Amino acid sequence: MTETVISSATKTVVIGFDRPFTVIGERINPTGRKRLAAEMADGDYARVESDTIAQVAAGAHMLDVNAGVPLADEPQILHDCIKLVQSLTDAPLSIDSSIVAALERGLEAYVGKPLVNSVTGEEERLESVLPLVAKHGAAVVAISNDETGISEDPDERFNVARKIVERAADYGIPPADVVVDPLVMPIGAIGEAGRTSFRIIRRLREELKVNTTCGASNISFGLPARPALNAAFLTMAMASGMTSAITNPLESEIMTAIRAGDVMMGVDRNCRSWIALNSSAGAAGDSIAQARARRREGRRRRG
Amino acid sequence: MTETVISSATKTVVIGFDRPFTVIGERINPTGRKRLAAEMADGDYARVESDTIAQVAAGAHMLDVNAGVPLADEPQILHDCIKLVQSLTDAPLSIDSSIVAALERGLEAYVGKPLVNSVTGEEERLESVLPLVAKHGAAVVAISNDETGISEDPDERFNVARKIVERAADYGIPPADVVVDPLVMPIGAIGEAGRTSFRIIRRLREELKVNTTCGASNISFGLPARPALNAAFLTMAMASGMTSAITNPLESEIMTAIRAGDVMMGVDRNCRSWIALNSSAGAAGDSIAQARARRREGRRRRG
Repeated sequence: MTETVISSATKTVVIGFDRPFTVIGERINPTGRKRLAAEMADGDYARVESDTIAQVAAGAHMLDVNAGVPLADEPQILHDCIKLVQSLTDAPLSIDSSIVAALERGLEAYVGKPLVNSVTGEEERLESVLPLVAKHGAAVVAISNDETGISEDPDERFNVARKIVERAADYGIPPADVVVDPLVMPIGAIGEAGRTSFRIIRRLREELKVNTTCGASNISFGLPARPALNAAFLTMAMASGMTSAITNPLESEIMTAIRAGDVMMGVDRNCRSWIALNSSAGAAGDSIAQARARRREGRRRRG
Repeated sequence: MTETVISSATKTVVIGFDRPFTVIGERINPTGRKRLAAEMADGDYARVESDTIAQVAAGAHMLDVNAGVPLADEPQILHDCIKLVQSLTDAPLSIDSSIVAALERGLEAYVGKPLVNSVTGEEERLESVLPLVAKHGAAVVAISNDETGISEDPDERFNVARKIVERAADYGIPPADVVVDPLVMPIGAIGEAGRTSFRIIRRLREELKVNTTCGASNISFGLPARPALNAAFLTMAMASGMTSAITNPLESEIMTAIRAGDVMMGVDRNCRSWIALNSSAGAAGDSIAQARARRREGRRRRG
């Protein structure tokens, strides 16, 4: 029962095999969001504030914070955003950057035990990120690519993940604090992307016994009706053993699918959350009246 | 690559590992539908007609036909309904009854190669249903319970399925013509019901190499917001290897989830069906404008 404990000053989130799926809100990220990028570069964090509040209200358990604005002072912006977001919510954070100096400044600002996003299997990254993670007693997202790029062979990607877990252990970071991202590719370009992901996720859980996460929205890149595709991908990844994802909690289709997935995995004990969410007036799902009408239909062999 | 070929006079449906998921419409079934039961008993088949047309229009590939009206002449009603439904659609049918005489009369009426629903692992059922299936060159749904009832142990249910497949072979029915139903229990009563199903489905596919089906709606019995639960269950079962289900095609949440599941499994080649369904005006999913707006967002690291 692998459990990755992430915390803020006052709140703990456990990513785990026998736990409800952990939703990490993806919105605080200027990549592809021109307006947010421009605002961040100007030190205007109003949208970071509203994204924080909206994502937590929508049910995100954690928030990813990325400040990757080209040509801006990313370490400083990330530092400021971490401080700001922590002043607004007690949801634990994922500190997200491809720049080690930015991760370092983000970690300095953070109160609690964060998730550092990310390290890869590249030597230079392993040697710069893992000591930082160990020093701060953080957990880390391990992305399963290395110097040779992203292999299309799921077994090779599994092997990269194993290498990162082993190297983390050398730095004193236990496997429970390594959350592997198997790298989800766009299915519009690579038809095997779904099945490859499910296969790696299953091996990571059964053989390496680590928690997993991913940038789930990548799967639907370039296709229409993306939330429905992301919802299907997420439930199928859950069935394969995935325990968290960086996704958009503001899409109700996605949150409904994840909550239904929790019911299916037996981690929403006695379906209590599902019933509470879907039986109250104004819930996104059925109204009480509808639910009762359905119950009145009675028991059917197929129905 | 196991393929179960089901046909009407003019149309063939293939249930298979590398095929889009086969949707078998569940609606023509009086169990729990009092009005339909009363009408069927009176020989009024107007609702059978409308259910036939609506389910095929909604995308069902096959239709299940059940005439289990208590105290009525089920064999005659099933016979009449099979004839009627085949006059209205070329979708192949599943002939559904727990009464062998009804299956027999249904088979007499049917033109093509139907799916017989169902045989169990009970000796008496094996000996009465399998010869009938063999005689008509049909395929059969094998429900994984026996004289001892429905085991909660997924491995025992797997063993019952294996026994049925072996016995079918004794009667000259090839494993490809046995579609196993692992028996889906209500998750509101049995928290393990989802995981148990996924585990059996996986073993059936990987070890026994048979196609699978189930009465999918059972999973959500007694709970609110059933279509969302059924949708999650179906995609998760697809990820586990399930290749068909008896479900309600009139629920758009369910059909959308199954179609998204096909994309994820790589069986909707080049996402062609998904794009066609979601790019045309009036589609249930995104409009062209929405899809384009999303594309304009451009490529994001997480999105």
